Amino acid sequence: MSQPAHRPRTRDLGIVVGALPTGRHNAITDVPGVLVGHTTVEDGHDLHTGVTAVVPSQLGPPRWALPAAVYRGNGFGKLVGSTQVDELGVLESPIVLTATLSVFRAADALLTYLMDRRPDGVSFNPLVGETNDGHLSDIRQRPITEEHVHAALTSAAGGLPAEGCVGAGTGTTALGYKAGIGTSSRLVDGFDRPVSVGALTQSNFGGVLTALGVPLPVDELIPDADRTEPPGNSCMIVVATDAPLDARQLGRLARRAIFAMGRVGASYSNGSGDYAIAFSTAAPDQPTIPDAQITPIFTAVLDSVEEALLNSVFTATTTRGVGGRTSHAVPHEAAVRRLAAAGWLTVPG
Amino acid sequence: MSQPAHRPRTRDLGIVVGALPTGRHNAITDVPGVLVGHTTVEDGHDLHTGVTAVVPSQLGPPRWALPAAVYRGNGFGKLVGSTQVDELGVLESPIVLTATLSVFRAADALLTYLMDRRPDGVSFNPLVGETNDGHLSDIRQRPITEEHVHAALTSAAGGLPAEGCVGAGTGTTALGYKAGIGTSSRLVDGFDRPVSVGALTQSNFGGVLTALGVPLPVDELIPDADRTEPPGNSCMIVVATDAPLDARQLGRLARRAIFAMGRVGASYSNGSGDYAIAFSTAAPDQPTIPDAQITPIFTAVLDSVEEALLNSVFTATTTRGVGGRTSHAVPHEAAVRRLAAAGWLTVPG
Amino acid sequence: MSQPAHRPRTRDLGIVVGALPTGRHNAITDVPGVLVGHTTVEDGHDLHTGVTAVVPSQLGPPRWALPAAVYRGNGFGKLVGSTQVDELGVLESPIVLTATLSVFRAADALLTYLMDRRPDGVSFNPLVGETNDGHLSDIRQRPITEEHVHAALTSAAGGLPAEGCVGAGTGTTALGYKAGIGTSSRLVDGFDRPVSVGALTQSNFGGVLTALGVPLPVDELIPDADRTEPPGNSCMIVVATDAPLDARQLGRLARRAIFAMGRVGASYSNGSGDYAIAFSTAAPDQPTIPDAQITPIFTAVLDSVEEALLNSVFTATTTRGVGGRTSHAVPHEAAVRRLAAAGWLTVPG
Amino acid sequence: MSQPAHRPRTRDLGIVVGALPTGRHNAITDVPGVLVGHTTVEDGHDLHTGVTAVVPSQLGPPRWALPAAVYRGNGFGKLVGSTQVDELGVLESPIVLTATLSVFRAADALLTYLMDRRPDGVSFNPLVGETNDGHLSDIRQRPITEEHVHAALTSAAGGLPAEGCVGAGTGTTALGYKAGIGTSSRLVDGFDRPVSVGALTQSNFGGVLTALGVPLPVDELIPDADRTEPPGNSCMIVVATDAPLDARQLGRLARRAIFAMGRVGASYSNGSGDYAIAFSTAAPDQPTIPDAQITPIFTAVLDSVEEALLNSVFTATTTRGVGGRTSHAVPHEAAVRRLAAAGWLTVPG
Repeated sequence: MSQPAHRPRTRDLGIVVGALPTGRHNAITDVPGVLVGHTTVEDGHDLHTGVTAVVPSQLGPPRWALPAAVYRGNGFGKLVGSTQVDELGVLESPIVLTATLSVFRAADALLTYLMDRRPDGVSFNPLVGETNDGHLSDIRQRPITEEHVHAALTSAAGGLPAEGCVGAGTGTTALGYKAGIGTSSRLVDGFDRPVSVGALTQSNFGGVLTALGVPLPVDELIPDADRTEPPGNSCMIVVATDAPLDARQLGRLARRAIFAMGRVGASYSNGSGDYAIAFSTAAPDQPTIPDAQITPIFTAVLDSVEEALLNSVFTATTTRGVGGRTSHAVPHEAAVRRLAAAGWLTVPG
Repeated sequence: MSQPAHRPRTRDLGIVVGALPTGRHNAITDVPGVLVGHTTVEDGHDLHTGVTAVVPSQLGPPRWALPAAVYRGNGFGKLVGSTQVDELGVLESPIVLTATLSVFRAADALLTYLMDRRPDGVSFNPLVGETNDGHLSDIRQRPITEEHVHAALTSAAGGLPAEGCVGAGTGTTALGYKAGIGTSSRLVDGFDRPVSVGALTQSNFGGVLTALGVPLPVDELIPDADRTEPPGNSCMIVVATDAPLDARQLGRLARRAIFAMGRVGASYSNGSGDYAIAFSTAAPDQPTIPDAQITPIFTAVLDSVEEALLNSVFTATTTRGVGGRTSHAVPHEAAVRRLAAAGWLTVPG
Repeated sequence: MSQPAHRPRTRDLGIVVGALPTGRHNAITDVPGVLVGHTTVEDGHDLHTGVTAVVPSQLGPPRWALPAAVYRGNGFGKLVGSTQVDELGVLESPIVLTATLSVFRAADALLTYLMDRRPDGVSFNPLVGETNDGHLSDIRQRPITEEHVHAALTSAAGGLPAEGCVGAGTGTTALGYKAGIGTSSRLVDGFDRPVSVGALTQSNFGGVLTALGVPLPVDELIPDADRTEPPGNSCMIVVATDAPLDARQLGRLARRAIFAMGRVGASYSNGSGDYAIAFSTAAPDQPTIPDAQITPIFTAVLDSVEEALLNSVFTATTTRGVGGRTSHAVPHEAAVRRLAAAGWLTVPG
Repeated sequence: MSQPAHRPRTRDLGIVVGALPTGRHNAITDVPGVLVGHTTVEDGHDLHTGVTAVVPSQLGPPRWALPAAVYRGNGFGKLVGSTQVDELGVLESPIVLTATLSVFRAADALLTYLMDRRPDGVSFNPLVGETNDGHLSDIRQRPITEEHVHAALTSAAGGLPAEGCVGAGTGTTALGYKAGIGTSSRLVDGFDRPVSVGALTQSNFGGVLTALGVPLPVDELIPDADRTEPPGNSCMIVVATDAPLDARQLGRLARRAIFAMGRVGASYSNGSGDYAIAFSTAAPDQPTIPDAQITPIFTAVLDSVEEALLNSVFTATTTRGVGGRTSHAVPHEAAVRRLAAAGWLTVPG
């Protein structure tokens, strides 16, 4: 069973990614109007799964679409809804994340939610991502119900969302450790008004955890850890911004979100379904930012995704799952010691 | 109400597309091992929908993947499963077609089918396409159940499949007329052994019906026809071949399938979700056909898709659907008269 | 030798594509500010080649980029400049068309032109397309010089451009006949102000010439025609519009330009490098047209490209080229007779 | 002035990337048959540029094409030849790298080379990449001639190629320092026979140099360094392998090559034209490696590209270029000291 104990976030440990300031909560919810909700589904035994929803509150009457793009870093995944985003360049629904084999039930549930909001609608494009939490959760049960999805959507709120073993991250593992949901944000100056960029990740991918360039291999930090290799690793990344950007530009942001995975030690393996979704909440009448000025926003994406990925691991707690398999939390002390030894931390958190 | 009366196929009317010979049934099932099954869902009133499954029997132990590609002609659609096909270049499931708002339920049902066949599997990529039959069917009911999908899959058979108002084509309309499912095939010489190419379409798209270059506009052929414009038109095209081709080459075939829509008068409108899926059943140890020899196969795709699209319209029957809307069958006699006048038909069928 | 005799355009023969009105000149130059220039390179013997330039006069201080997109229908070609158009969504140079083996010399010449206009520039993205006129012209000579390109660019003008055997179309063949450059335009109502769409094509692709659905096969219309099959067929299509559209939307237009090739009988063969480039001249401060209103513009693209392709064949003149090979002009009378017999022409032109 | 003094390679300094063994020369030339040639063009003053050619000797009668793919990490560049590689999945020419404004002259020169080898050919697809060395070299001179390209191609040889300020890397800068050409290789076990993977990079991109996770910022290591920001940064990466992989799979390798840039501190900025080209030299009759076994090859790509990028910086020498701008070599001692302090080096090289 996972202990939902509150663990410090990466930055609280003194691990600071990049030079840009974070938003107030250092979360995707720092992009005004972006809400996050979780439904955690656990039976204390074989099920460690759930649903996470990213809800842009700008989506609603009369505005039923926001500029958006999807980038497929490695398309070994079952992301629902991407071709219509490619074609029309818009997000038409909240983004729901869940477990692989529950993705269609979640999509159908999200469709219910969308249909309820537009009783006359006959076409909707729910966007639902997934990673495979089958290492710790009995994924073949497909336990996600319409209620679970509805609860995540309707409980979505601002402020700092729960991280780690929660929602769609309840049963995921990454970079050798227990992982889950992580989030972070950045503020970028130099435009008419400061621009915010936020990231949320469902981390479930292989590699060697690396913080600020310092490898933290599980077999060194936890020599007796369970070595079973999880199947079907993946990573879903959601990037939100209030910068006025069009779909083509958001596609460029989404690409950088995938590039950021390398910074934390991702192995970009064959079986990893790595996707990034980027959307903009900017009012439609704002002129888009010229590409010539976009690099600082790219930096904000790279940095916020990197920190969100680190948060998704550092806040997760040791979880014993189906088949008796255990995934261990990253040991903060040992990690901080290594970072300090490498000269990174003057004041360990 | 639609009557599954058997109407002549296009070729039976003397309308012959291209110079290549057809396979025995002039159907996608002429590609050895490719089976088709339908479940028609009608309540004699508001529901005119269903499921069509294309089942390559080559998919099974020990071969769980066939080379495949998806081409998005116009991605205003909810095709499930495409990104993994893009990445890995393989089809890992039968192809299921249904109505837009039922696509996730159908995907979940197809997942059940796949899970039953691989009890140890934890990752599957069901491929499910859809078009919007909401003009004639009460699409918001989402009536497709697991049983419907299962029935289409397990009843899939060789021989000439039913066409017109059947399965996923029960409620669709195209080019001004009632449409549905259509199929056709071609044989191509010049290789070690003759190559077969088959197409199956779920036709639901706008434009002016055109046969052999002769426009057959509904407002001329049926002056008093119901003029209501259907919402969310689309076209799903499945192309099968036993030619040994890799995923990249199959992508080239899929593109030609979309190009063929123009030959029958497609308007390629904004709201049309036009996708083609192409797969090869060739044994994996056969050397792929060089691109320099591929053009006759392209021709077979163009011709078989064109004829499948015509069949999907010519075999459909007048259907009265939800809201009292009626979609009319193309009148064969009037059509044949026009084609004869244009010099096309010496012997009307 | 080619006779630059002025032949009637398709519409002058009574062949009218679609229902939309044309612009004043029925040419790409009907999009305000879009100019066309040609340099024809012939030695009366082995060389039948040249350069065609499409010059948007909006490109200039202070505006160095217009929204644009490239679509690759069949990428068997050497189009220069496309990846930067994909990334940034802009056209940064006039579009130059020429012969395959001269494409890099033309690109370098266009670069000279761009460098001359921006003496401080260190990065430019010339866009140069090509088709292979080696059937009639001694392509291995690579005869195109900087002067040829410069002349096409600086002579570019409004009004009706020359069509047929001129510029980059001097030595091309298409659909069995001598072809060349063709152009057409359409006007679309329903927006704040009428929108213009124009197309220009360099036609050099295989298939059976088809006008308004009526096949006009060379072996029937000119039974004793030279049957040598030209190598490396291709088609370059340029679409201009003054509709305010972004790069993603222009990509949708470009796709339709390739789809239109099917209407005139294109075989979409393996060796055909079929590309479309679409750009918008709209002032940057105009709000883009919503996708929900874009279908009439798609229709304008389909129709204007179809007619430009027909013009490119119907205006070309019989040409005897290198190796004694001859490509025949389509015989207007015979063509018109066939169209009349099919019921298409009440008043032959 | 740049001095082609021989500086130690990264690995000679004790900086070892990853766990896989290198090939004999730790160079792209460890892939059997792959040759590298350079032409350095310097006038001791304003010109610091050149040409680098990667020549797969497998390309030749009767085999005129090797499986290949191009990935565009950030398409702000003028790569010549990519669309045909996309379509046909093959490399049909040696790969030539040079300076931005000389790319078309180099392409035309490579075309000459290809035409000379196939006197009957009328269609060729030269593949030429570029980065912008205008920070140190008077790029507007376009000094690259046919002779320069010919010399690089014909002098191409096996063994360890020159690195740093040579060929197409003569005038490039990266990650704050003088950079140039770098190369590396890896061997992968677990297949019928060991597989070799080699990378060669033309480094010219922004960011903060990072070795093994340790940042080595120029403003700390060389506090008085010239701070002028170079324009139009970019990175060209060539990956060769003798693993039997098809074009789709090579596209997956190419993507990882771009992902590897993040490991050395790339900022992935707007203006960076970042492309990777991957090709396979495997004999055509070998069965392709299944995707399920491809991850170790991905690792080899990530590691060899990372080390090639480091080599491209560590072997380059301080260069004073046009406009009096100077780009400094990375100081090995200071770098090694930092790496040692971070615990990375037990035995500094």
